[in-house]
Amino acid sequence: MLWRENNRKNMASPVTVESVAPAPRNAVIASLHQLLGDRLSTAMPERERHGKDASYHPCVPPDAVAFAQSTEEVSEIVKICARHKVPVIPFGAGTGLEGHVVALRGGVCLDISRMNRILQVRPPDLDATVQAGVTHPQLNEHLRDTGLFFSVDPGADATLGGMAATRASGTTAVRYGTMRENVLSLTVVLPDGRIIRTARRARKSSAGYDLTRLFIGSEGTLGVITELTVRLHSIPAAISAATCSFSSVEAAVKTVIQIIQAGIAVARIELADATEMDSIIRYSKLDLPVEPALWMEFHGTKNSVAEQARMVQKIATDHGGTHFAWATTPQDRSNLWQARHDVYFADKAAWPGRECWATDVCVPISRLAECITETQKDIAASFLPAGIVGHAGDGNFHITFMLNPNEPQEMAEAERLNQRLVHRALSLDGTCTGEHGIGCGKIDFLLAEHGEAVGVMHAIKRAIDPDNIMNPGKILRIQAESRK
Amino acid sequence: MLWRENNRKNMASPVTVESVAPAPRNAVIASLHQLLGDRLSTAMPERERHGKDASYHPCVPPDAVAFAQSTEEVSEIVKICARHKVPVIPFGAGTGLEGHVVALRGGVCLDISRMNRILQVRPPDLDATVQAGVTHPQLNEHLRDTGLFFSVDPGADATLGGMAATRASGTTAVRYGTMRENVLSLTVVLPDGRIIRTARRARKSSAGYDLTRLFIGSEGTLGVITELTVRLHSIPAAISAATCSFSSVEAAVKTVIQIIQAGIAVARIELADATEMDSIIRYSKLDLPVEPALWMEFHGTKNSVAEQARMVQKIATDHGGTHFAWATTPQDRSNLWQARHDVYFADKAAWPGRECWATDVCVPISRLAECITETQKDIAASFLPAGIVGHAGDGNFHITFMLNPNEPQEMAEAERLNQRLVHRALSLDGTCTGEHGIGCGKIDFLLAEHGEAVGVMHAIKRAIDPDNIMNPGKILRIQAESRK
Repeated sequence: MLWRENNRKNMASPVTVESVAPAPRNAVIASLHQLLGDRLSTAMPERERHGKDASYHPCVPPDAVAFAQSTEEVSEIVKICARHKVPVIPFGAGTGLEGHVVALRGGVCLDISRMNRILQVRPPDLDATVQAGVTHPQLNEHLRDTGLFFSVDPGADATLGGMAATRASGTTAVRYGTMRENVLSLTVVLPDGRIIRTARRARKSSAGYDLTRLFIGSEGTLGVITELTVRLHSIPAAISAATCSFSSVEAAVKTVIQIIQAGIAVARIELADATEMDSIIRYSKLDLPVEPALWMEFHGTKNSVAEQARMVQKIATDHGGTHFAWATTPQDRSNLWQARHDVYFADKAAWPGRECWATDVCVPISRLAECITETQKDIAASFLPAGIVGHAGDGNFHITFMLNPNEPQEMAEAERLNQRLVHRALSLDGTCTGEHGIGCGKIDFLLAEHGEAVGVMHAIKRAIDPDNIMNPGKILRIQAESRK
Repeated sequence: MLWRENNRKNMASPVTVESVAPAPRNAVIASLHQLLGDRLSTAMPERERHGKDASYHPCVPPDAVAFAQSTEEVSEIVKICARHKVPVIPFGAGTGLEGHVVALRGGVCLDISRMNRILQVRPPDLDATVQAGVTHPQLNEHLRDTGLFFSVDPGADATLGGMAATRASGTTAVRYGTMRENVLSLTVVLPDGRIIRTARRARKSSAGYDLTRLFIGSEGTLGVITELTVRLHSIPAAISAATCSFSSVEAAVKTVIQIIQAGIAVARIELADATEMDSIIRYSKLDLPVEPALWMEFHGTKNSVAEQARMVQKIATDHGGTHFAWATTPQDRSNLWQARHDVYFADKAAWPGRECWATDVCVPISRLAECITETQKDIAASFLPAGIVGHAGDGNFHITFMLNPNEPQEMAEAERLNQRLVHRALSLDGTCTGEHGIGCGKIDFLLAEHGEAVGVMHAIKRAIDPDNIMNPGKILRIQAESRK
């Protein structure tokens, strides 16, 4: 699907699409062809595949796609683009949700998916160094016999480079943290082609500015992440999982708050509203009530898992939780989380012919029930179907609007509901996105969220990427006049 | 003690001391007097107290000391200094260890210790908002009846603002993280006086560059931290502590590695070498062998603490651990950790008349035993006494050289040993400081550690503080010509 004028009209803040002038574009393509041979593609199917992510954002294809194989090669590619001030758009698995890879100003899409070597695993240090194109399932498959695992799982089979770039998290963040906590060090190619390593491999350091955390979440706007050293965790001796139903979202959220206050280190604690439960139950053939539910997982020793489970069941029961269903065998557990994982497909099956527009916000957990309940009222009053799932332990939840992206009024309605959602989250001291990122989809909310601090982000962007060649039009809207 | 030429001669890389020209200095002092009245001091005793931290770094007094009471007042003070390009040096409790507060270029010391109000505690969200002058013992005293605690404890009674500025940690970081993981949001006064908040209060966010983490560890060189929202943790139902002796540092470190690999979430795991154990045992009258030892603490339910302790004792015994001593009553536990806490006084008592030069490095844990053992050889071959304690679970350890700072050859020897220590840590993929920071003491190691990445730090510094008024001469050595 190419960029459509009718979609664009209906966006609250239309993004502008520019092209690279023919002379620099041709010069860059010629140089890249020389460097990469057939690993440079200008074929339209390849460009279209790389001009779109997994979201509602319409495709804007880049001028060319470069498949890099090493950090040094990324550096050479970036240098060629920098010389001609041609945009560079890093691309991992294309599973982003806020238009992170659309080529708003044309340029070269730098596909790092072939940089998929696992360079080193160090069990005593509980860390691993990988190329940025390694996906988290690939890393975990590789770790299978080590007793270790990599904890961050954003749902999609994303690359670790992309996950770092968007500060991804997922169901296990409540216990093991997000990408922010699970990356020790990055290798980054800067906008002028220099290669830096942001930190040593020590668990902690007070040596200078935290460049690792600066590049995590920078969405390719400050450089290209080419290698990561990530933390690993020991696979717990025992794991059990459970679901529990509630008559209201409030009761479920109160349960979550009390579980966390009790210091129970629950490994996952997911919330689904009745609408999503309905879709999930039908799609995955689960025998559960169509009511708001919590999905939980406990990690530890056999004894501690049993103890956590007892404590949690008591707390849930105190808040009216019913239908406690335990999954203790690996197969039962896998089925349960597969059902949670398949919520996208469940939604698609529940509303045939419609596409998903997924958005997310994150609020302090004391405001989570209020934020969800008010949002449910919006959804109930709208003609657009939408369900809610959330990483309740973090105060983070998602809405999936089911719509036809070719229907302007449906896109406009999703946009309106999304705006209300974000402003509600901000009014509750929350953020416009807990884990999806800004991309070009939430660029207008950044100022509402950060105010004067956005000026600091602009200063950093200008300092590191003065020509604005790195993924332009994402996170920050930089005016042409400030790009010289 | 004022800046001494003989100390300066013996520093590996002499820092240069400059003064503010009389005209801007007088203009700033006049304006600040008008703003602050008697909360501006130019009295020499006050200036000397503020020109020195808790380290070996000689005093360089600022031109004046301003005691701020609010974020708005900090903003006004910074604006006045910015107008005249006069340095601003933020000051918390003065407990730094790398000369963070010495006024290398004169200017105004901005003392935030009177900004000590706890603004809000939110038990359901497990967070609190405080002014930057609140100390961690003060916050924990305030939290006493809530069942919550703030986990970061660097030893000294530091302010939270100072702890954020140096990315402090301490004994509990292995379980609860450092300041990096325990700050949700900062209020910062920028070098031009603008006030920003770096993040909302949500547990996680993917909304733009991570300014919170940028200011954590920036040591006052990018702005003044005036308020913090920090994470709190639930006080565990049960706590127990233990010490265990080993015939070698290697055996102790192997025990630590195996404990962590077993997924046991030990709350503290501290290492002391035989030299430090000797001082501690004498000073705190403990009945323990003079051998390398681990000091541990376990948090959880009664059952899980007992289980952790059993597992750990088994692992320690497998590595030749002896003299397992349990402290289960609050009093015993308190005595044990007080003894660890008092290591500074134990060292002073063991070597009467000598001062401490404390340094720290952090390495991947698989290299910790090697790093300590090689360093012990250096110490054994030197005429300078020195002991080692460490946060072994993080691979972080400290050396305290006991010396007479007025003896140039002793200072030179400490400097030489420190250099060898840092370069050894760097050669093992570690960092030149795990938790003390760079200040002016480790400024020359930054390039050796980060290489080309230091250029990015310079670019950020220039972008945010173009006139280099914020704590000049710390972290980065900025040449006068680049300051225009």
